[in-house]
Amino acid sequence: MTALRDTHYMRQAIGLGARGLGRVWPNPAVGCVLVRDGRILARGWTQPGGRPHAEAVALAKCDARGATAYVSLEPCAHHGLTPPCAKTLINSGVVRVVTALTDPDPRVAGRGHAMLRAAGLEVVENVEATAARAMNAGFLMRLEQGRPWVTLKLALTLDGRIATATGESRWITGPEARRMVHAMRARHDAVLVGAGTARADDPDLRVRGLGITHQPVRIVAAPRLDIAVHGRLGISAQEVPVWLLHGAGADAGARQRWRDAGAELLECPANPDGLMPDETLQILGQRGITRVFCEGGGHLAASLLRAGLVDELVVFSAGKMIGAEGRAALGPLKLAHLHDAPQFKLDAVRQVGADIVHIWTRGTA
Amino acid sequence: MTALRDTHYMRQAIGLGARGLGRVWPNPAVGCVLVRDGRILARGWTQPGGRPHAEAVALAKCDARGATAYVSLEPCAHHGLTPPCAKTLINSGVVRVVTALTDPDPRVAGRGHAMLRAAGLEVVENVEATAARAMNAGFLMRLEQGRPWVTLKLALTLDGRIATATGESRWITGPEARRMVHAMRARHDAVLVGAGTARADDPDLRVRGLGITHQPVRIVAAPRLDIAVHGRLGISAQEVPVWLLHGAGADAGARQRWRDAGAELLECPANPDGLMPDETLQILGQRGITRVFCEGGGHLAASLLRAGLVDELVVFSAGKMIGAEGRAALGPLKLAHLHDAPQFKLDAVRQVGADIVHIWTRGTA
Repeated sequence: MTALRDTHYMRQAIGLGARGLGRVWPNPAVGCVLVRDGRILARGWTQPGGRPHAEAVALAKCDARGATAYVSLEPCAHHGLTPPCAKTLINSGVVRVVTALTDPDPRVAGRGHAMLRAAGLEVVENVEATAARAMNAGFLMRLEQGRPWVTLKLALTLDGRIATATGESRWITGPEARRMVHAMRARHDAVLVGAGTARADDPDLRVRGLGITHQPVRIVAAPRLDIAVHGRLGISAQEVPVWLLHGAGADAGARQRWRDAGAELLECPANPDGLMPDETLQILGQRGITRVFCEGGGHLAASLLRAGLVDELVVFSAGKMIGAEGRAALGPLKLAHLHDAPQFKLDAVRQVGADIVHIWTRGTA
Repeated sequence: MTALRDTHYMRQAIGLGARGLGRVWPNPAVGCVLVRDGRILARGWTQPGGRPHAEAVALAKCDARGATAYVSLEPCAHHGLTPPCAKTLINSGVVRVVTALTDPDPRVAGRGHAMLRAAGLEVVENVEATAARAMNAGFLMRLEQGRPWVTLKLALTLDGRIATATGESRWITGPEARRMVHAMRARHDAVLVGAGTARADDPDLRVRGLGITHQPVRIVAAPRLDIAVHGRLGISAQEVPVWLLHGAGADAGARQRWRDAGAELLECPANPDGLMPDETLQILGQRGITRVFCEGGGHLAASLLRAGLVDELVVFSAGKMIGAEGRAALGPLKLAHLHDAPQFKLDAVRQVGADIVHIWTRGTA
């Protein structure tokens, strides 16, 4: 029974933590539920910018003496801008702490759990670890591999086209699917498109229509920095961050114009094919980005896929056909054989408005 | 309560009728359930070849006096190879007949219902009419428009490719999806492919691995009849029917070779683009075909789509990416604008093995 209860409350804590996705970077999105005698005393989740932490938020709301704290990540043990959460939990009178994951941050890495146990609290670890790991995939990816988690979104006709031959793409999918895309943008730290898409669509890339004020960083991979500064991104770069990833050969005048517009310029290693995807994502990781939502185009998507850097695929399929002249979703992948094709395993599929959305993660079933 | 019970038993009758799909053509697939005092007395469905009819099958199994007969289509009223089912029902002592659809066949068209009523039976019509109409879409399409219902199957990567640049396509989808394709073939009267697919894949097109002995007619649209007779289709044409749809200009030697192999040749109107899809389907309708399962290739699929002749789309999406060099699912559709794109509305979507299957029918949501 205790195990069932622990699972139940931990799922709630993980769900609460997810509210922070897209706005706590480079910190983890953590949720906390305080429970005593089968009653929830308080809930908390990591606040925008990463502070205060979930435990502090929940503990500030109640007298937690004798309670169990469910926390989706090991409480921190180090003095940062705030006192360590392990200490705060001990001081609160909580008697039992249930966690889902050990924090791989070398400043924590088990010290939080040890501090709690040393103070006499009961500690239960690894409850709903898989779900917590999935929710914090971006934070963990950055800590473990130095790069953000990459979600690639595709919005396609049933024959895999993203636009007609003349470039008409508004709209392939319906309003419900497009609203879902905005919600997904909001749960990522940054939205990423290639220069071709920036030129062709002049996208705004902001989250709209959901009552969300927080905005992800808008990033364009533009090796030659050949995008006009007077488009939607340039005009709004003072309001919502725009980062431009470019190669060493980018024109000095263009650099200056974009800097003047308020964009941030990040020089990345490039080769004749474009930016080097591994190195470029490492640079985003160094800047604290844990979750990137890539919305194409086909060249950028193909370069990420070729490099094995797409962790999650979100595909919207609309009940339309465009035919062979239409624009393809992907550039060349240069496969020699079918068994070299990048593979993904199904995570979820469902109807959304008149379309379907299917979500896949890297790997085989 | 009666209405609820009627719906319940009619759904069963429709489900039973569906067992005949693919082997009762040109007849409708009908199911019949006989119920008395809340107990099912007997079930029946139209037998292979179209006879005996569902009602006769069920009535032969029990004493139906005082029972209600649920029949998914109006009982026939004409003497054909068998006595009219309306008469058989009357003679059986059934007191109430519930039907889903009026048979549009001009030899029936309400006469079955009238005959039952004239004999003093209670008749309830249009119970679960939508489901019955969907199940008998092929039969109805042929009666109403002279052509078979066309289901187009596509098995694609997430970027809409059906093979690598070198033509490797085995296998895009997994064994569960491929098994489902065989089950779908079995529920159609005929399987149809284009000449390019016949040449490239040398397909067998038979239903395999499901313990099904019945086989759909195998049809190839080959305007110039330029497919080798010593492939899998030619070799097996004596066992399972092979029909070749060709234009007037087809080589006389090729015609003779295919006839010698046991295939049936159907000359169809053609233009420089290939066979004329409307006229070709009319010819299949004249031959009694009510349901066609088209498995490509891209040229044939595009010509059916351009002509507005695809009624149902079955799309298998596999969690793989092939990239821009891969073979496209469709040939050119020659669209001027996105709003001219053929549109389909979602009927069902679900996981099948490692893949997903999504089924769409013509029209907008």
